[in-house]
Amino acid sequence: MALAPSCSHALSVQSDPSLSLSKSSTTILHSSCFLHGGAQHSFRKHGSSTFKVKKCSYVSASLSESGEYHAHRPPTPLLDTINYPIHMKNLSLQELKQLSEELRSDVIFSVSKTGGHLGSSLGVVELTVALHYVFNAPQDRILWDVGHQAYPHKILTGRRDKMPTLRQTNGLSGFPKRAESEYDCFGAGHSSTSISAGLGMAVGRDLKGRKNHVIAVIGDGAMTAGQAFEAMNNAGYLDSDMIVILNDNKQVSLPTASLDGPIPPVGALSSALSRLQSSRPLRELREVAKGVTKQIGGSMHQLAAKVDEYARGMISGSRSTLFEELGLYYIGPVDGHNMDDLVTILQEVKSTQTTGPVLIHVVTEKGRGYPYAERAADKYHGVVKFDPATGRQFKNKTPTQSYTTYFAEALIAEAEADKNIVAIHAAMGGGTGLNMFHKRFPERCFDVGIAEQHAVTFAAGLACEGLKPFCAIYSSFLQRAYDQVVHDVDLQKLPVRFAMDRAGLVGADGPTHCGAFDVTYLACLPNMVVMAPSDEAELFHMVATAAAIDDRPSCFRYPRGNGIGVPLPDGNKGIPLEIGKGRVLLGGERVALVGYGSAVQSCLAAASLLEDRGLTVTVVDARFCKPLDHALIRHLAKAHEFLITVEEGSIGGFGSHVAQFLALDGLLDGTTKWRPLVLPDCYIEHGSPAYQLAEAGLSPAHIAATVYNVLGKTREALEVMT
Amino acid sequence: MALAPSCSHALSVQSDPSLSLSKSSTTILHSSCFLHGGAQHSFRKHGSSTFKVKKCSYVSASLSESGEYHAHRPPTPLLDTINYPIHMKNLSLQELKQLSEELRSDVIFSVSKTGGHLGSSLGVVELTVALHYVFNAPQDRILWDVGHQAYPHKILTGRRDKMPTLRQTNGLSGFPKRAESEYDCFGAGHSSTSISAGLGMAVGRDLKGRKNHVIAVIGDGAMTAGQAFEAMNNAGYLDSDMIVILNDNKQVSLPTASLDGPIPPVGALSSALSRLQSSRPLRELREVAKGVTKQIGGSMHQLAAKVDEYARGMISGSRSTLFEELGLYYIGPVDGHNMDDLVTILQEVKSTQTTGPVLIHVVTEKGRGYPYAERAADKYHGVVKFDPATGRQFKNKTPTQSYTTYFAEALIAEAEADKNIVAIHAAMGGGTGLNMFHKRFPERCFDVGIAEQHAVTFAAGLACEGLKPFCAIYSSFLQRAYDQVVHDVDLQKLPVRFAMDRAGLVGADGPTHCGAFDVTYLACLPNMVVMAPSDEAELFHMVATAAAIDDRPSCFRYPRGNGIGVPLPDGNKGIPLEIGKGRVLLGGERVALVGYGSAVQSCLAAASLLEDRGLTVTVVDARFCKPLDHALIRHLAKAHEFLITVEEGSIGGFGSHVAQFLALDGLLDGTTKWRPLVLPDCYIEHGSPAYQLAEAGLSPAHIAATVYNVLGKTREALEVMT
Repeated sequence: MALAPSCSHALSVQSDPSLSLSKSSTTILHSSCFLHGGAQHSFRKHGSSTFKVKKCSYVSASLSESGEYHAHRPPTPLLDTINYPIHMKNLSLQELKQLSEELRSDVIFSVSKTGGHLGSSLGVVELTVALHYVFNAPQDRILWDVGHQAYPHKILTGRRDKMPTLRQTNGLSGFPKRAESEYDCFGAGHSSTSISAGLGMAVGRDLKGRKNHVIAVIGDGAMTAGQAFEAMNNAGYLDSDMIVILNDNKQVSLPTASLDGPIPPVGALSSALSRLQSSRPLRELREVAKGVTKQIGGSMHQLAAKVDEYARGMISGSRSTLFEELGLYYIGPVDGHNMDDLVTILQEVKSTQTTGPVLIHVVTEKGRGYPYAERAADKYHGVVKFDPATGRQFKNKTPTQSYTTYFAEALIAEAEADKNIVAIHAAMGGGTGLNMFHKRFPERCFDVGIAEQHAVTFAAGLACEGLKPFCAIYSSFLQRAYDQVVHDVDLQKLPVRFAMDRAGLVGADGPTHCGAFDVTYLACLPNMVVMAPSDEAELFHMVATAAAIDDRPSCFRYPRGNGIGVPLPDGNKGIPLEIGKGRVLLGGERVALVGYGSAVQSCLAAASLLEDRGLTVTVVDARFCKPLDHALIRHLAKAHEFLITVEEGSIGGFGSHVAQFLALDGLLDGTTKWRPLVLPDCYIEHGSPAYQLAEAGLSPAHIAATVYNVLGKTREALEVMT
Repeated sequence: MALAPSCSHALSVQSDPSLSLSKSSTTILHSSCFLHGGAQHSFRKHGSSTFKVKKCSYVSASLSESGEYHAHRPPTPLLDTINYPIHMKNLSLQELKQLSEELRSDVIFSVSKTGGHLGSSLGVVELTVALHYVFNAPQDRILWDVGHQAYPHKILTGRRDKMPTLRQTNGLSGFPKRAESEYDCFGAGHSSTSISAGLGMAVGRDLKGRKNHVIAVIGDGAMTAGQAFEAMNNAGYLDSDMIVILNDNKQVSLPTASLDGPIPPVGALSSALSRLQSSRPLRELREVAKGVTKQIGGSMHQLAAKVDEYARGMISGSRSTLFEELGLYYIGPVDGHNMDDLVTILQEVKSTQTTGPVLIHVVTEKGRGYPYAERAADKYHGVVKFDPATGRQFKNKTPTQSYTTYFAEALIAEAEADKNIVAIHAAMGGGTGLNMFHKRFPERCFDVGIAEQHAVTFAAGLACEGLKPFCAIYSSFLQRAYDQVVHDVDLQKLPVRFAMDRAGLVGADGPTHCGAFDVTYLACLPNMVVMAPSDEAELFHMVATAAAIDDRPSCFRYPRGNGIGVPLPDGNKGIPLEIGKGRVLLGGERVALVGYGSAVQSCLAAASLLEDRGLTVTVVDARFCKPLDHALIRHLAKAHEFLITVEEGSIGGFGSHVAQFLALDGLLDGTTKWRPLVLPDCYIEHGSPAYQLAEAGLSPAHIAATVYNVLGKTREALEVMT
């Protein structure tokens, strides 16, 4: 089934049971109209309060119109001739359009075989082609913010043949990566860094006396982060030549959407961008165009004319924009799927001797050109392998749900019982599971945008008023709010709870998203209670524990992936644990494996391997890194020759806390020996979870081998590894 | 000598040798005119390019006009009747003005006896009085961003009698502190948190069904931080009632000024604020006033009229502001030293049933009303004790300079030899010493504003282009850029150098500024070289070492305070150290004290105490936490019974790295015992350095006692402590 994403068809969409989206498809298509038709979003303040709905005049000429998607690789005669951007330079505009069509179909087919971040990449196909046509990478620096959208860029820069290895062990990274290609001038994964890095490159260029261009492509979601503001403020001040392309797709480039519909970026900035997209009388446009001429000077005359011609009904009015307030020259909005416009604007900006930073506001549609993506609530932001002909994803049936879902269920159960519980996330409603919480408690759930810093201090403010805030932020993303955790929460001993998903290794997302450091950087804080569940039932209990801890901050980390299948507590309601108490899971001799968090399961599996070979070891679920269960550790130290601490985390975390206690208590002076197993002192590349765990030396076999090694049984150690 | 800070007197300032400011006094007074007279700053883009200089019509009625400052406590008959804000409620406007005068003189006199942050506090005297007159703290929440300016607030909220203890051991904190007073609703110290916290309080109030007001007072410098933007974006979106007071004094509320003149906040935002301050024809003002009425509604009619009347020649034009783009209702600029205006505006805003956040742009003068402060380049931002009659500060003569100065000298020497070296700081040119670097290399020094996140990624971009960036950021402030250090620098192995001043305990500034965690949160990163100099000569060498390390990131931490007086390298040019190699300073027996950074000096002092008592211990300067000197540690472990690691840092840092190596190398299994001395698991309150070191258990006596204790000599341990 192939559908043109045309508004006129919006109400005649045929329901396809495979999509599970039919109930909201009308809304979604309607929503997608806004991106093309210049219809106006309503907003609460400033400007017109009337809600205009215009006829959608920008029906796309997407691939879907040329026929059905097949399960076979689509013909790509032109793309087949393009290995590097240099091969594009002599193409005509018409050929660039064809290249875009082929590139899009190639992305769809390729990702259907590997899974990956599809929607963002589809949205920037034309922009990518135009950028690589107009600019000369790698001399010109093109930075992709966050990096979800870099697949077309990878295909055009020598990596098409490696696309089947995307996000797999030893394969292409899912993000731009400097070590992978000279065309990836700045690595990404976390949001909102591109303007800062691009400005650094622009200033560096000037200091070095070079002449290349610097282009940062950043989404409207990423613009909500403070760092983007800091960077624009500094760019406007330094006035270095650089180009910021605001890729405005009214979507957060994060897994924030729910199945019920797309989640637009939150925040007042979003309204401001909507205003910019709202149409204005042409007379005003002409004035803008005149202003362009006047401010940028001579050679922009032609651009002004082009803009005039191009933007009928789309250009912003004469009011200054937030970007202009910050000293960036604003151009837009530009239709990000119109190759003629993109090439024209980019060529003009490139050839103009501007002084200072320019922001080009490009409007795109996430999932563009693939109807199943366009219609999906999440725009196929991230997909597993799928059938390109039907869009159906090959999702594995699993007997258990993700830790993310269990967290959400646990928090909902707590919130049912305690009206003071509120939840905060940073544009990650889907990723954190809080969309489920939001559905149940819309007034008690706060999506603050990609703004982890604000999220944490905002939560501190809520705690001051007697609320019980849970901040759900990925382990690696909480790094962005570290100062706020220290200064606003821990130092003031405010009871903010941090739920850290994606703790430890994260598989295909790789090192940018690996939650390696949280135990280290949080357990050193004096007032923080630091805990980690060893299974999903424990997660329910720790959510209850965190809810109960109301005199100081607390945090708990849990892994990416699914629960192990243990029974859940009745009614999803956990029972608060005794703070600072661990538990012995298996009794054994000589060696105690002291696991923290998900590593406990690896310890149990290691113990099972050893049990099969006739060796019985003790396995402990520490539950708490802080306060540490001193009595238990002391008991273990006295009853065993070796304590082996095991964690999916860096040095300085759980093991270090155990060692410090042991040393100060004199327990390392005698017969007890301590061995730490932590993540190794390197970044583990993306790959399968099993591969990563083995790379890290934290697999059950590694743990079992470590046990044999400390006991001097090197032969057995080698055997258990094979 | 008393001078009215009137522009008409600007050129007749009598030179006072005690001030050392005469050469720039004209400039400074001229500059201060801008804050009153509505004269227009030039800015590079947007708007009029003509530089208007108007007659200064807002000559202040400051205390200085009523006579000289005396060394004796000034009479404060009205202030003497005010212990809490409740005592102000029946005062007339005239009395409020008198109260402000008395409060200002009390602040000056009080701080002259203790030292402290004077300039910021003098700037908000009228604002503080007006806020406490109009609003009802503590029910109404008043948040002071950063908190340098909170002294008048402390005096009016029950703490006047404790002002002589300011910033001293067991005395008043120099910042707002929740534990100190219910009037301090949110602690501060780091910048730009108040809007986030205030919004949390506003949302919490609404959820709890309360009716109080929330007022966040934030400076224009603090507005450059991304968190403020994130918070405004979220405030505009949530539309909760709260008041943001932008305290615009064209000064960064940080020790950023040099002796050569004041440093205004950098960034395009500053230009935007200048534009807001530029005067407009009254006709436009009337339109704004009409807009006020229309947008906020009925009861704002009166305010509109007031604004109209009040702001002749001062109000902004009709163009939208950055704040309006973000959904905050903008009012201003308001003369922050005009009690009538302040009270009128605040009362109107308070009594209006607004919907959503309001931003009141208040223009103040840092150092206001104390001529010595007004004329000083740093506006007496932070002062030691001084003579109120002359403004002369009682600075101690010291034989050595601060580590800050040595760092700057070392970096200048490196930069003389290598043109690729550049320096970045976050609005801390004075605090980091980089003002000296900027003077020598104006093109190679970048003040990015209070924007640590951007600073780090900007530096990463510079490193991509082959520059050699040094990011100078206080240890505790680098917490705000942790994610950027991990994700943009370390993961990409980019050679950015982090110079971390104020590492360890910081004396009077207290726990918010204590650099406790840097070793822990940086040494866990795989690619980072982590080092710390034990004295100022070592600092020179480590700057040279960092300059030489060009294949990966590196960092070094150094303490607040002065060098110890060792000879400096020739020409200030350090010699790169061998990476990962420590050094033995004293050879001894049984016990090795392994110090890291400034703690090495404490170890040497402890060894001296022990030597006096006939015990000779080994003292090692580890130099590197990462890579650790494995050979040296192994050697020490084999040659001693006890290794005692000593650092002014938290658990998880140097000691933990040593322990992990020892354990994995089997060195803890035999005869060697490890004891870690780290900062205790609590925040050390402000106080004298000696007090803090003793509180932390890291004084030489504590270290010596630990040596005796591990040797089982408890009597000697007690003796050495007394």
